[in-house]
Parts: sequence; C-alpha cells; structure tokens
Amino acid sequence: MSDIPTSHPRYKSLMTRQRLAEHAVTGVVSMEGLTSHGRGEAFDYLIGEKTPAVALEAEKLAARVLLAARHPVLSINGNTAALAAPQIAELQQASGAEVEVNLFHRTEERITLVTNVLQDAGVVVSEGPVERCVPLPHDRGLCRPEGIGDADVVLVPLEDGDRCEALVGMGKIVITVDLNPLDRTSKMATIPIIDEVTRALPNIAAECRRLRAAGDTLVMPESFDGKYFLAGAVEAIAETLRHALD
Amino acid sequence: MSDIPTSHPRYKSLMTRQRLAEHAVTGVVSMEGLTSHGRGEAFDYLIGEKTPAVALEAEKLAARVLLAARHPVLSINGNTAALAAPQIAELQQASGAEVEVNLFHRTEERITLVTNVLQDAGVVVSEGPVERCVPLPHDRGLCRPEGIGDADVVLVPLEDGDRCEALVGMGKIVITVDLNPLDRTSKMATIPIIDEVTRALPNIAAECRRLRAAGDTLVMPESFDGKYFLAGAVEAIAETLRHALD
Repeated sequence: MSDIPTSHPRYKSLMTRQRLAEHAVTGVVSMEGLTSHGRGEAFDYLIGEKTPAVALEAEKLAARVLLAARHPVLSINGNTAALAAPQIAELQQASGAEVEVNLFHRTEERITLVTNVLQDAGVVVSEGPVERCVPLPHDRGLCRPEGIGDADVVLVPLEDGDRCEALVGMGKIVITVDLNPLDRTSKMATIPIIDEVTRALPNIAAECRRLRAAGDTLVMPESFDGKYFLAGAVEAIAETLRHALD
Repeated sequence: MSDIPTSHPRYKSLMTRQRLAEHAVTGVVSMEGLTSHGRGEAFDYLIGEKTPAVALEAEKLAARVLLAARHPVLSINGNTAALAAPQIAELQQASGAEVEVNLFHRTEERITLVTNVLQDAGVVVSEGPVERCVPLPHDRGLCRPEGIGDADVVLVPLEDGDRCEALVGMGKIVITVDLNPLDRTSKMATIPIIDEVTRALPNIAAECRRLRAAGDTLVMPESFDGKYFLAGAVEAIAETLRHALD
C-alpha cells in the first residue's frame, strides 16, 4: 500500500484514504465507512477544503451549547475515531462531555477496537451495557441508557441521517459534523456543522476554552436555525463551482 | 453485513456500497477504490442521479469515436469491473473494442481476480505480458504494448487523473467516465463523460448499435471540445443546488 508517489497531486488525500484503509483491515472502520469518507472528500473539495465562515459560526454555537448542557455526550463511530481520535480527546477535555462509542455496523469486537483507538489517544470512554434507547431497527438503536439515552445534547460526527432524526425525535439537541449540507443528517440536525471533522472539533474545543476563560454564565438558546448553516454551506459550494473551470 | 433495513431511505446506495465492500474482501476492489466510489456517489447525487442531457451528447460522441477508431481499447479497473461487468460485455459486443485490465493498485493476483469477474460476465479479456508503455512512476504505467500501448482510442472509466493525462500525452484520444467534472481526469480527457458508469456504458453501446445499423461511414472528428461537457455538468450541479434546500 506504499505505491503512492509523493509527486501525486492528491498525495495528502490519498494518504488519508490509506490510513482509513489500514483501519478497515483491523475493523475499526467498516468497509462501507470507506465509501462514506469518499462522499465527504467530494464535498470538502467543493467547500474549498477549509472551514467556511458560516461553519465557524456553527462551531462556536456548538461550543456554547455543549457547555450549557445538563449532560452532553460525544457519540463516536469508527470513521470519526480513525480520523480524529486526538481531536476528540481535546474536545472532551475542553467541554467536559462524556464520550460513548456508537456504531452503524455494530459488533462487540468493533466496539472494543474503536474504544481502544480512542483510549490510546487519551479519550475517557464511557462503557457499559446498552439498550435500544433510540427507536431504530437493528442494532443501530443501541446505546447506554445513562449515556446517550440520558443526554440532552449529543454531538454525532459523520452520522447516519436516520439516527440523527431519531435522536432529534427524542427531544435531544443534536449537533452534527458532516460535509454534505444536502444530506438528511445535516437537514435533520439542530446544529449542522458543514466542515471536515479534524478542522471542526478543534474549533469547537478552542471556543469552549475561550468561553470558560471568560467565565460568563452560559444559557441554552431556546431555538436554533439549522437552515441558516445549510444555506451558507450551499453558497460556499456554489462559489467554488463558479470558478471551477476558470 | 446484512443489517441495512430495506426501509432505509438510501437503501439502494447502501446496497451498492455493500457489494463493493464484498468485492474489497476478495481483492477485486482496492480499499482505496471504496473511497473513490464514495466521491462518485456525492457527485452523482449532485447531478441528480440521472444522465444529464450534456452527458448523453458525450456518450453519443464516444460511440462514434470508438467505431471510427483504428484500435479502440476499454481499460478496466477493479471498481469498474465490480460495478459494471455486464455493461462492459455489452459495450464490447456493440463497439468491437478490445478489453484490457489495468489497475492503479496492481498485483498479479488482483489482475486475475478482475479478469475473472469480467470473464464471468461474458467479456473477452486480452491478456499477456505488460511493459511500461505509459510514462508513469510505479506499476501504474504497465500495459500491453499491443493493447493499450497500440491503441488510438482508450476508454478509461473511473480513472486516475495522472494516467489519463499520460495517455493524452501519448497522443491517444481518451474517453473518461467520471462523476466529478472538476477532477483532473475529467479536465484532461479528450471526451469527458460526466455520468455514472452503469448508465454511461449502456448509452454508448446503444449508440454504437444505432450507428452500425444506419451503416454510414464514420470519420474521426479532427478536434474535440471537452470543456463543453464539463461546463454542462457544472451547470447541472448548480441547478441541483438552487433547489437543494426548498
């Protein structure tokens, strides 16, 4: 797997793919997760491979909401762990949120593998028995009753639209990180962050540290305008397209 | 891997992913190929998951060029074989083109696996010793001197931009099938077809049959306007975005 020449114009992107592929061999990442990553790559290209101003606004709001929450949980899947374990550790430290592993293609073996990747990066992972707290078919509905089941705010990076919708339906505030502004995940989220996960999480963490240092009392907003963030992301893509063939 | 409920709104797309994942287990598809597929998925979503009018124009031109060629070759990689082996057989029959397997992540074992998938679908695959006919680093430059090496027209679905550029640099007419109109593959191609491969290949085959039935003498065009096809695809995406959040 070392046959990618450094001269290749998409070297960095291909190396990230290779890292995910290696994680797929061990089982941290599901094979379907590799394809999901590709979808994300395409949209990252279209938003210019940098954090759009409107995404930074969403990230700052997410930080405020995580700090104002009664019980915030970061729900982490295989792709997020493989791509961003150190950034999850940083965000956990800055926000005080609980971290729970939650997988679309769930097996006990993969739960352990993903947990290990996170722990190796310094994340404190909440473990324990799961129940079907989220009304979804198959094992995707399983989570810890005293974890995601009890949370009022859940951050779900690189999530499935179905699960996002079900969590919102349970009355939770759902923060997503997903590069596709047209995906159901983004459309369903309370706060959709349209940004790449290794850029988004440190931005949220930095804002958490800033807010904590400022020492203000943080009040949970009463309503959210998710569509504002989506419209901004679509505009960022449209702007890329206008210059794409120059 | 059968835990995708049929009620899932993206069931068809997830099943295709699963099929590719199964081909990745056997080695027909490289793991990086799974990610490439995801990139394609995103752009297919953006062009509306149907053949844009401008892509059909490109497909009809491709048919004409394949029939007018001295020595047309279809260069097939793992993803294309996994997704579209029957459609490759149909196009080979309709166009009379030679089929050669050519892989980015090349091993003799994968060459055999991909060849078997194609042969099982009725494709006649040209095999034999390869040489570095295409000026590229590593094994990506290997092909049969009397196959792709000798071809005047090469159809390279789901190809790498580097290889596409190198083939064009050798004076060949290169037809690509790729869903990303902004990719170097599409920008470098003589005739970039911006469409999903299982839709594009049958459209080309149908036009080959129509042209053959009409019995006209087919003359190779002297020049091509690839940018026209790219601009049309970008416009199709822009149109999707204009209505994305309605």
